Amino acid sequence: MGENRLLEAYKDALYSIQGHGKRNLDVLKEAFAQLDGEMESDMYGSGKIIEDFQQKVAGSLGKERAVFFPSGTMAQQIALRIWCDHKEVPRVAYHPLCHLEIHEEDGLKKLHGIEPILVANKDRVIGLGDVVGLKDDIACLLLELPQREIGGQLPEYETLEAISRFCRDKGIKLHLDGARLYEVLPYYGKSAAEICDLFDSVYISFYKGIGGIAGAILAGGEAFTEESKVWKRRHGGDLISLYPYIISADYYFDQRVNKMDRYYEGAKELAAHFNGCEGISTLPEKPVSNMFHVFFHYPKTMVESILIDVYKETGVGLTGYVKEVSEDECAYEVSTGDQFESIPKEKLKTTFTLLNEKLKQANK
Amino acid sequence: MGENRLLEAYKDALYSIQGHGKRNLDVLKEAFAQLDGEMESDMYGSGKIIEDFQQKVAGSLGKERAVFFPSGTMAQQIALRIWCDHKEVPRVAYHPLCHLEIHEEDGLKKLHGIEPILVANKDRVIGLGDVVGLKDDIACLLLELPQREIGGQLPEYETLEAISRFCRDKGIKLHLDGARLYEVLPYYGKSAAEICDLFDSVYISFYKGIGGIAGAILAGGEAFTEESKVWKRRHGGDLISLYPYIISADYYFDQRVNKMDRYYEGAKELAAHFNGCEGISTLPEKPVSNMFHVFFHYPKTMVESILIDVYKETGVGLTGYVKEVSEDECAYEVSTGDQFESIPKEKLKTTFTLLNEKLKQANK
Repeated sequence: MGENRLLEAYKDALYSIQGHGKRNLDVLKEAFAQLDGEMESDMYGSGKIIEDFQQKVAGSLGKERAVFFPSGTMAQQIALRIWCDHKEVPRVAYHPLCHLEIHEEDGLKKLHGIEPILVANKDRVIGLGDVVGLKDDIACLLLELPQREIGGQLPEYETLEAISRFCRDKGIKLHLDGARLYEVLPYYGKSAAEICDLFDSVYISFYKGIGGIAGAILAGGEAFTEESKVWKRRHGGDLISLYPYIISADYYFDQRVNKMDRYYEGAKELAAHFNGCEGISTLPEKPVSNMFHVFFHYPKTMVESILIDVYKETGVGLTGYVKEVSEDECAYEVSTGDQFESIPKEKLKTTFTLLNEKLKQANK
Repeated sequence: MGENRLLEAYKDALYSIQGHGKRNLDVLKEAFAQLDGEMESDMYGSGKIIEDFQQKVAGSLGKERAVFFPSGTMAQQIALRIWCDHKEVPRVAYHPLCHLEIHEEDGLKKLHGIEPILVANKDRVIGLGDVVGLKDDIACLLLELPQREIGGQLPEYETLEAISRFCRDKGIKLHLDGARLYEVLPYYGKSAAEICDLFDSVYISFYKGIGGIAGAILAGGEAFTEESKVWKRRHGGDLISLYPYIISADYYFDQRVNKMDRYYEGAKELAAHFNGCEGISTLPEKPVSNMFHVFFHYPKTMVESILIDVYKETGVGLTGYVKEVSEDECAYEVSTGDQFESIPKEKLKTTFTLLNEKLKQANK
């Protein structure tokens, strides 16, 4: 009840601090509006639309080749499978809150028979010590930048370099879950190619910070990507036409890839507002990308009710849902995008002042 | 050289006997043109767009539930995996030219560890005797209607009924590769639901006779389809948004599902034209759907050269490529659709008269 009411109030709000806008059909229509209808579809991985885009993204990532996939789930399982097959070791290592471990119904285990070793405590990012301390031989280590499930935290760049060096010395392939890779470039002050150079294979997504419809790229050396195409067909991902995703990915990539610093600045500004409220904290306290998690140290139903009132009074929506963490704590994820900048600063200030007042009031 | 010239001449021809038209961006643009841009995307298998379409197709197929998949490759491997898991027998049976056997890079074996038993000779469709004669225990038998790789041949309906009865008696699940199911309804004189009633699970495609962009439906009982959703996620097919495929599938389904008898009549008319030419035969001689294969009993380069001349003189394109079968034989696949009806009958006659003359001439 509170949940539906919160979502409705959020949708009704004039402004939203989240993302780029609604995921509706206009996202597709806008991307296709100016294109020549006579343009030919890609065909099973071939054709100008897919080949040009793959080459463009390979260039951006500084990798030899790139292959477009319908999903990151498919792309990453395939990357790990290839590295396991090469080494003949069906074992990889990744963070306990890795996408493959918690969101994919164990596809990696059930389809590929690959055993994952969980590295590091789930509350922090993987460090060099965790990797050096691995007891079993592994074919591949997966690093996720930023580590989404803990608010989008990042290791220091030097740590990445050290892990990369260690893996190369030990014959362990290093794979990047870069679903939000472009989103962390402003923090690192590096190019995508500089970061990808530390990794043997890289996956990026087009519907997070880029704001496309769906789809992913898997990039790496030519032999690796050629092998990935065979697995793409095995998975049922070598569709006759992927252009609805490719064209929208390309369109929004061009529109947003150079705005990641603005989204990052927005996230820091917004986190400061949240942290200024009584009983609210963010993780990380100071964001390192366009994302962070917000923790309300109050019961979920109370927070929902207060948020609804705040949206109605200010016209600013913060979130459409909050997730219960414990009896007196709830949380949600923020990802800033185009929408944040359109909120007048004064309005934002009023919103958080009101939110803070209501929380204080309730806390009495 | 001859190949590229043939394709170019085919593209340049005013008319084409094949399909519904070009696979270009207009296919998508037309399907989306009249839709409200505010309509919300599906989200990971939920939402009105995907749920409504799944229910509509389930109804048409007379099955309890239907699940939309990005591809038939994914849908069918998953169907077979579920039936194998239920029976704890990792073995299925299908035709030697089954899509899973020759077009999927052995995904069924490499991802699911399922062993296929090849049934019947590759030159004919599966009969009751082939199934009764199976020596190993199998979890599932897959039948493809029509059998595409041999020109789209069909067993008699009574054979289907007998195989279905036998499988039910023996505890063997029967799966339908119905990529072109709607295309065979006019020949059988049955509804989709009547045919599907003989099967435990059914896959249909939306970019053959329907002419959509991509995508498939897997239909069956509720427990089966619920399980298929878990595997869809494992395969990386549970995309955040599948609406580009769903909306186009729905749009062209409505437009074409009731025109299959016309495509079928067109195929019969066209096959008669081909069979009237010296040194050309079709398989089957009399089509049983909108498809058949054309065999030219001449060398490929000779056929290419003659076809180019015919297209240029008549403005009617037959095919953009022919495949070498042997030194003095080549072939290609016909699928009739909307385009065939737009060719004036007189023009068609002239085209085949000219083709026949040129073949006779060359044969001297």
